[in-house]
Amino acid sequence: MKQTTLPTKESIIEASKRIAPFVHRTPILRSAFFDKKTNSSLFFKCENFQKVGAFKSRGATNACLLLTSKERKSGVTTHSSGNHAQALARAAGILDMKSYIVMPETAAKIKVEATRQYGGIIRFCKPTLAAREQTLQEIVEQTGATVIHPYNDFRIIEGQATACLELLSQTDEKLDYVFCPVGGGGLLSGTALALAYFSPETKLIGCEPLRANDAKRSFDTKTFVPSENPKTIADGLLTSLGSLTFPIICNFVSDIITVDESEIVDALKLVWERTKIIIEPSSAVAVAVAISGKINLKNKKAAVILSGGNVDLNQLALFFNN
Amino acid sequence: MKQTTLPTKESIIEASKRIAPFVHRTPILRSAFFDKKTNSSLFFKCENFQKVGAFKSRGATNACLLLTSKERKSGVTTHSSGNHAQALARAAGILDMKSYIVMPETAAKIKVEATRQYGGIIRFCKPTLAAREQTLQEIVEQTGATVIHPYNDFRIIEGQATACLELLSQTDEKLDYVFCPVGGGGLLSGTALALAYFSPETKLIGCEPLRANDAKRSFDTKTFVPSENPKTIADGLLTSLGSLTFPIICNFVSDIITVDESEIVDALKLVWERTKIIIEPSSAVAVAVAISGKINLKNKKAAVILSGGNVDLNQLALFFNN
Repeated sequence: MKQTTLPTKESIIEASKRIAPFVHRTPILRSAFFDKKTNSSLFFKCENFQKVGAFKSRGATNACLLLTSKERKSGVTTHSSGNHAQALARAAGILDMKSYIVMPETAAKIKVEATRQYGGIIRFCKPTLAAREQTLQEIVEQTGATVIHPYNDFRIIEGQATACLELLSQTDEKLDYVFCPVGGGGLLSGTALALAYFSPETKLIGCEPLRANDAKRSFDTKTFVPSENPKTIADGLLTSLGSLTFPIICNFVSDIITVDESEIVDALKLVWERTKIIIEPSSAVAVAVAISGKINLKNKKAAVILSGGNVDLNQLALFFNN
Repeated sequence: MKQTTLPTKESIIEASKRIAPFVHRTPILRSAFFDKKTNSSLFFKCENFQKVGAFKSRGATNACLLLTSKERKSGVTTHSSGNHAQALARAAGILDMKSYIVMPETAAKIKVEATRQYGGIIRFCKPTLAAREQTLQEIVEQTGATVIHPYNDFRIIEGQATACLELLSQTDEKLDYVFCPVGGGGLLSGTALALAYFSPETKLIGCEPLRANDAKRSFDTKTFVPSENPKTIADGLLTSLGSLTFPIICNFVSDIITVDESEIVDALKLVWERTKIIIEPSSAVAVAVAISGKINLKNKKAAVILSGGNVDLNQLALFFNN
């Protein structure tokens, strides 16, 4: 059932219980190296270890579990060639539902295959916004499937909020800051609500690539600015904010800070080399902001949400070789 | 003090207690993907999360702690451009000892720097065996430092044995197999002793690159075969067995199995992509053997020792881009 109101304190707790049997309670990682580098206590929330390798499992699972039994019979659909596609296919599979995933013909083969392995039915379209929306519309007409948008949906936002709720339960100490990447804003707005309800004194910093800085510009001007031809290694952060995520971010986020491509690559390499865990470039954006010195973390306690760990090693190699 | 007898059941337990304050108790990782792939229950012992990123911290710390107070005053020395160099420098630093590390002039800058950061005093030499041994000899004459060989030393073997002792305490179930990489044989011979004492029914498989198969040939013929110009991505496994490790391996290892370079790269990528943790190519050798089907693991319980996670990303990238 479509949820039309802002997730509440209680609904986020409920969502957390609802999805618990189907997703991981991901660990918190500490690193002496990063503590020393920032002169702070840093807590890394490892959603890279989440099911399908990203926080997206939380929202997708929550959305699927909220469907009525009638809705479940017709399945779900979305357009995504990223982590949301796999997360939705997996969540639908758990509930014996069909999932129709619209992807551009140009989608990376590895992502198509991964989505298929989770049981997703792929429908290819031309790589344009119009073709994507038309294909999605056709699927809805043909199958009656429920559209689950990657981020502009309160069920999704509520699910993503559970990562921060969990983080707070895993850190005894009061956090001064949380650093969170922003693309469409599902994770950031969910995190914003969780902090507003459960830790209102913690400042939330949205972290964005300079080369995809639409959220920063939207936030600063309080006027929606769409993402236009962004080109960044952080391929999970290309999308524009949504009509639901934008106002939440305006109201509950302290600031949005951008980092350039070399800062992102350097942060990614540092995490890989020093903590021996794989994060994707989108997560490295949040690390890059946290270690940039743009916010003075001296003697502070801060968390960084490592949103995912899905990387195409063949492609990423291009960035290492310099 | 030089230890001249084989580590015993009791001495390995003692070593484990001795080093406990200075090294990590590393976690066991499970992976639904790898369980399914091998039709078995696989337990990954994550020494990649160990101090300095490799099991080498265990042996080096044990060796340093066993020195007399007189010996400690003169420091320690070794030749290594790999994980042992960093591990020894770190262990010496903890005990306020000097460490003199002999490295070839050709050693990777990143490794030189890492060793220096742990307080190691680097002495460069020409990249030949003769130059290395001469430089080491000069250091001993000048400083009186104790030589701590990377693997051919019972204190080192005893320390490396603690990884397997810990593994056994972390897995309630009886292991049918343990897969362990072999280079000089410090980890493999330590693991062999630990299994012989604490889990004698578990079969131990040494895992080696086909292109550095001196241990396999030595094991099969029961005659020492030196490593000659090995060329493999698994740069931690280039060395020959030692006079102490070879007989232990002959007596207590079930078999040594080799894998080719593409199997190593494929295994490394699979671990990175599926578990989101970074392992080094030497560790991937053991994974490659475990998933190769060369041993039928159906319904078995097996552990793979992920020996380390130190990779030069710039260099490794070369192997991904195909």
